[in-house]
Amino acid sequence: MCLPYYFSRYSENIVMITTLQDILKEYKSDMERMEHRIHASLGTDVPLIQQVSKYILGAGGKRLRPLLHLLSARLCGYREHNAEYLLGSVVEYIHTASLLHDDVVDEAKLRRGRSSANSLWGNQASILVGDYLYSKALYHAVRLQIQRVMDVLSETTTTMSEGEVLQLMQIQNSDIAEADYFKLVECKTGVLISASCRLGAIISKAPLSQEDALTAYGKKLGLAFQITDDTLDYAADQKQLGKMPGKDLAEGKVTLPLIYLIQQANDAEREHLRSLLRADAMTDADLVYTLELMGKYGSVNEALSIAQALSNEAKTALNVFPDSAPRQALMALADYVVQREM
Amino acid sequence: MCLPYYFSRYSENIVMITTLQDILKEYKSDMERMEHRIHASLGTDVPLIQQVSKYILGAGGKRLRPLLHLLSARLCGYREHNAEYLLGSVVEYIHTASLLHDDVVDEAKLRRGRSSANSLWGNQASILVGDYLYSKALYHAVRLQIQRVMDVLSETTTTMSEGEVLQLMQIQNSDIAEADYFKLVECKTGVLISASCRLGAIISKAPLSQEDALTAYGKKLGLAFQITDDTLDYAADQKQLGKMPGKDLAEGKVTLPLIYLIQQANDAEREHLRSLLRADAMTDADLVYTLELMGKYGSVNEALSIAQALSNEAKTALNVFPDSAPRQALMALADYVVQREM
Repeated sequence: MCLPYYFSRYSENIVMITTLQDILKEYKSDMERMEHRIHASLGTDVPLIQQVSKYILGAGGKRLRPLLHLLSARLCGYREHNAEYLLGSVVEYIHTASLLHDDVVDEAKLRRGRSSANSLWGNQASILVGDYLYSKALYHAVRLQIQRVMDVLSETTTTMSEGEVLQLMQIQNSDIAEADYFKLVECKTGVLISASCRLGAIISKAPLSQEDALTAYGKKLGLAFQITDDTLDYAADQKQLGKMPGKDLAEGKVTLPLIYLIQQANDAEREHLRSLLRADAMTDADLVYTLELMGKYGSVNEALSIAQALSNEAKTALNVFPDSAPRQALMALADYVVQREM
Repeated sequence: MCLPYYFSRYSENIVMITTLQDILKEYKSDMERMEHRIHASLGTDVPLIQQVSKYILGAGGKRLRPLLHLLSARLCGYREHNAEYLLGSVVEYIHTASLLHDDVVDEAKLRRGRSSANSLWGNQASILVGDYLYSKALYHAVRLQIQRVMDVLSETTTTMSEGEVLQLMQIQNSDIAEADYFKLVECKTGVLISASCRLGAIISKAPLSQEDALTAYGKKLGLAFQITDDTLDYAADQKQLGKMPGKDLAEGKVTLPLIYLIQQANDAEREHLRSLLRADAMTDADLVYTLELMGKYGSVNEALSIAQALSNEAKTALNVFPDSAPRQALMALADYVVQREM
């Protein structure tokens, strides 16, 4: 009898993978191959594309989406050792393209603690290299010749760009409904993370129940990830975060902690917060004022408890799978995204 | 015996379609359906996407790419009346997305005689709505479930974005080689026009000889179109052109007429032209100086003669097809792109 891979390695079902470090150790060679693929798939002889792409792809990204894709594929028994690296680089390219465009839209100076690409090469290069990465991602995906991969990816990028526009429309809107915030986060972040997981099931030709489970897992994890990110903007210092704290507030982006704060603040406080959102520039005193109010009303913790609940739901979605190394890794990642400090 | 459509309608092989007006009359209902499809396929309930897309898609575009796609499909005998409208809207979306991003990159104030989208809604909206149109184009194309359509489209958008970056790298380069200019134009304009024609053959399941012929036709026509466009920048007034004359020069873009001028000018003139290219702003006197020099050396006519030769090559590529209404229309379009005044 041929036991599945994870039973042969974990016959006692001992929980071994509980942290990000555990995951990166267990899947070290896989992620090295992924990393190689990410750089090797660029495929252009245009120097400026190479420069900008190399910079942004090498900028200390956590490769969360490729890792989720790899683990999802492994969880569904895929080990042909080809499509998972290719699609891992595809989702990373799409993510990176959206970062390049985001940073232009936000006029960001920093990205992951380094100068943003737009501040080094200008908006023009960032826009066009972003377009290149989008196109190249789809180029590689198309060559897999799997219709459902393209169905998912093309729907994903469409929804992502809708999410970006929705976010733009909500700038400085202090009355954004909680539901609109969740929709925005789902479009902007949730669908690509969800697709990364789902595509792992698709290339494995997994049953629909498993594909649905991974889709749900990814969606919940994506929401938990983004909400945590939005809280870190009010909780971390610049060194931890790799970008300026209070950045969302300065850009007029109303995220979950601020939504909760505005709901609970008294009239005078609410009015003051609205004036900060509308202001062209934000001072340190403005930020301190907001952070103190958040402390008073527990807004950051309230948002974090939502992220924690979503992380738990993500883990629950994996119930359809028996215990295995990749399942343990995905469970650990669901914990990681809400516990990370940057 | 069942004669093909074009013989039954043009049994005498009388040349009937010789101008753009003839084409638009002959294919009026087809292009009305195309127009409907272009607007109906947007498929978003995000108001800002609707607004910006409607504005830019309604901005008096000639629908050259959808028309070429339609005629190519008809030439190869396609009349299922579905995919040609869908792919016509796909190529128009890709083109429109590139215009939105171009105008941000060029900081353009005008587009086709009206305010550019970026000057009305800002760079942010233009970048993100451009991303949406790219994604939506691929979304629709994917749903046709024809692998070769996706192969061609994904290669096309990748090459286009490489072309845009190449152009950015060549800004203010007065020593750009003629060959580099042609490569840039082919990437930036030629491949999408070529793909529009080629996809007409692909959805018709035409023999490879016909597909190759239409690919070649589209490539030559695309080059002729862009070179003519580049000469108009030195030959048309603002009203005709819908944008400022001398715009390329002001933006530091070295196009074919200027390449020829720089080749033929004497040392003093060449140095003066180089200083104009490097300058932050261009005066009317600078433009008049350049136009007079172009008159002296015949640079515009020299570039136009190249465009004319390419137009002829485009027509020659259609030799593999017997005479028919769509073939006449494509021949007429090859004339149109080099004869138009805007």
